[in-house]
Amino acid sequence: MVERISVIKIGGNVVDTPDALSSFLRDFRMLAGPKILVHGGGKEATGMCRKLGIETRMIDGRRLTGADTLEVVTMVYAGLINKRIVAQLQSLGIDALGLTGADANLITATRRSPKPVDYGFVGDIDPLDVNDCALSGMLREGYTPVICSITHDGHGQLLNSNADTVAMTVAAAASRIAPVDLIYCFEKAGVLADSSDDSSVVPLITPEIFETMCLTKVVSDGMVPKLTNAFRALRNGVRTVTIKNAGNLLAASGTVVALER
Amino acid sequence: MVERISVIKIGGNVVDTPDALSSFLRDFRMLAGPKILVHGGGKEATGMCRKLGIETRMIDGRRLTGADTLEVVTMVYAGLINKRIVAQLQSLGIDALGLTGADANLITATRRSPKPVDYGFVGDIDPLDVNDCALSGMLREGYTPVICSITHDGHGQLLNSNADTVAMTVAAAASRIAPVDLIYCFEKAGVLADSSDDSSVVPLITPEIFETMCLTKVVSDGMVPKLTNAFRALRNGVRTVTIKNAGNLLAASGTVVALER
Repeated sequence: MVERISVIKIGGNVVDTPDALSSFLRDFRMLAGPKILVHGGGKEATGMCRKLGIETRMIDGRRLTGADTLEVVTMVYAGLINKRIVAQLQSLGIDALGLTGADANLITATRRSPKPVDYGFVGDIDPLDVNDCALSGMLREGYTPVICSITHDGHGQLLNSNADTVAMTVAAAASRIAPVDLIYCFEKAGVLADSSDDSSVVPLITPEIFETMCLTKVVSDGMVPKLTNAFRALRNGVRTVTIKNAGNLLAASGTVVALER
Repeated sequence: MVERISVIKIGGNVVDTPDALSSFLRDFRMLAGPKILVHGGGKEATGMCRKLGIETRMIDGRRLTGADTLEVVTMVYAGLINKRIVAQLQSLGIDALGLTGADANLITATRRSPKPVDYGFVGDIDPLDVNDCALSGMLREGYTPVICSITHDGHGQLLNSNADTVAMTVAAAASRIAPVDLIYCFEKAGVLADSSDDSSVVPLITPEIFETMCLTKVVSDGMVPKLTNAFRALRNGVRTVTIKNAGNLLAASGTVVALER
């Protein structure tokens, strides 16, 4: 019986910086027990689009994924970044296995409706879209899944999904196997009361506190979906959710998200 | 006990053409028993290098893999092509799992010596470099491994390996699990006695016949390493090796390579 599973999500700030990534992976290696790493892309996909002359179009701060952009994110996330991480983890003695949602039919997404806004090849997912049987088998075999945010629709179409949501759904699915601790790593020390002051970490956020923070506009645009995912993870069986700096993976730090005090 | 394992290698002519790929994958699905697909890249990697302004340098017909070219082949082979195949196979009900040699530590290569010629990040491999234990576990779990020709050195460095050689080493390693039939698919009907006549398929090639063909220059430059890999596969336990057209996967056709008549 597995005591617990750690699901860690890293973002662009880590994957874009070789030193930060190496340092993070050395910490990741030290986590006890079965673990799963979820990563998005970073500036490399945007840079690659630019080099290839593919226009990055945004609506309300969200990237539109046309057919050409989907090819680039598939190349960069599933190819370049995923395999770079897998090779480094292998060199550290971690038996990493890089995955998209298509591999082992791990995550089947639903292409977002083109109305009212057509975001292109974007896949929405929820906890029941994750193949916990495949996940369980991989963990049992001793693998450390390294999952990027490319999913598929089960009919041959790859889709671009939100990496925070991938982490949430994977953590929720893993909770059907063993207790799960989900950690969202990002560039700040935690959720900040004052976005310009890294020492103003809010130690605990409940739905009640979150509501107040939204009303008083303490949480910024990017943090709202992350916290929404955090609450959704908890409501779907995840034991703990923490939001912290990627450089502090092993330290007790950051913001704990909980359903109640 | 598994009766047999099929290892199929496809090349650029299949992966570059969407219709040919779809048709091939539908045939691949019909192969009975456990199966493994090995693929290289095609013109997409060359095209991507060109778009990104990366010069393709060749020495004696072999591509040099500099750091920038390695990034491109990793993106194109492990990202774009591999995931395209995996998503299509999943839509056909095949539980495909896309892999590089770094994933699950599947293939550990040795970087080729920079002397006398520095080919860059090129990885040489032999049958003992393949993790048959991981391969066996995946087949036992019901997965169909889809392996691209990116390997790693075990110290964090990805390497570019020859896809025909990857197929040979994987087939040889799989022979330690069950009898293996290896099929090299390419654009011609088989090894031809007259390269301009597709009906001149040589039905059987033994080392003796091969030697004669080399002396009389019946086999061309590209075919020599393929046949060398075929013989190496047989000498490392592979039961049968066939070289045939990718469009004829299920038909009895092509050239059978054997150690004796």
